[in-house]
Amino acid sequence: MEQEYSSNLLENAVTALSRLPGVGRKTALRFALHLLRRPEEEAASLADAVARLRSDIRYCRLCHNISEEELCPICASPRRAASTTVCVVENVKDVMSIENTRQYFGLYHVLGGLISPVDGIGPDCLEIASLVERVKTGGVDEVILATGATVEADTTNFYIYRLLKRSSPDVKVTQLARGVSVGNEIEYTDEATLARSILARTPFEL
Amino acid sequence: MEQEYSSNLLENAVTALSRLPGVGRKTALRFALHLLRRPEEEAASLADAVARLRSDIRYCRLCHNISEEELCPICASPRRAASTTVCVVENVKDVMSIENTRQYFGLYHVLGGLISPVDGIGPDCLEIASLVERVKTGGVDEVILATGATVEADTTNFYIYRLLKRSSPDVKVTQLARGVSVGNEIEYTDEATLARSILARTPFEL
Repeated sequence: MEQEYSSNLLENAVTALSRLPGVGRKTALRFALHLLRRPEEEAASLADAVARLRSDIRYCRLCHNISEEELCPICASPRRAASTTVCVVENVKDVMSIENTRQYFGLYHVLGGLISPVDGIGPDCLEIASLVERVKTGGVDEVILATGATVEADTTNFYIYRLLKRSSPDVKVTQLARGVSVGNEIEYTDEATLARSILARTPFEL
Repeated sequence: MEQEYSSNLLENAVTALSRLPGVGRKTALRFALHLLRRPEEEAASLADAVARLRSDIRYCRLCHNISEEELCPICASPRRAASTTVCVVENVKDVMSIENTRQYFGLYHVLGGLISPVDGIGPDCLEIASLVERVKTGGVDEVILATGATVEADTTNFYIYRLLKRSSPDVKVTQLARGVSVGNEIEYTDEATLARSILARTPFEL
């Protein structure tokens, strides 16, 4: 049943908040009533942060990561800019996930999505041409395709691989290791992952 | 592990969004990245709705419900203003819930919370004095205490009941029926509710 509100202000806030991912009208109403109970500064700072996030945000000229400057902190770092490895990821969140591992010290390239004809996302919507151009320009020895293990990721990887091999045949193209997740039991690992893990078994090391 | 962002704008947005109830930094980041992918108008309209909600909101002079005018639509309705029944609720959301039942056509009084010494909420923080005054002024025959079935609700109800009986001894004070929820099975009804339902059994009617 559609809820009727006694105030257009509340109605507008609930409608706007319910556009956030995973937020329905009930949760949006909870958010709105919470904001009403809090000091006015809190609502104002939320409004300001949201407005500025979208209007003032910039993307790194080189890797398309979110950035305050023309180059993001990673591309701007002299130590990392010297790297010849580029890690290709779907989105900005994936950069954060990989940075959190503290195991990678190279550069990134953020595609801004994956090829998905169903959703009308073709290669032209993504930063694929700029990646190919970047590799062609030189200074890149290895491209790591660090996308997920989905159909869209496989399609995108295959497409990028073909383009790269055509324009820069000498570049090394790798992908993330696929296998049993750390902490997972065999019993609960899906068959496709397990099959791939057997075929791609590695020497036992102590 | 605390996440590091490549942009203060993103950091600020995530911090502000994570102050919403039930929203952690991960969900806040999902909200922020979603806003970045959407047209700028969407973030702007959310920001505007949130800012105006808190700064422009008004409360009904009589019942303290959210309102655009001095009187909320319920208190302003001539048919409802003629009612002599006042339904006391904890918050604005409860007004909506009761309105949604389409079974109540009287007036409301929004307390703005429940007495909770643990949270530092005493009777003076709530609209209790204004309720007592409103009943004393006349025109109210029945006060329905429509709060939940919690310790705080019981405390608040008891406090209000004593004040009302002292200042307006003739007013009828009622509370919501307590019992087995519609659609619930006996097997899954908690003991306290079941015990109360047996003691407060009603004549069987066809």
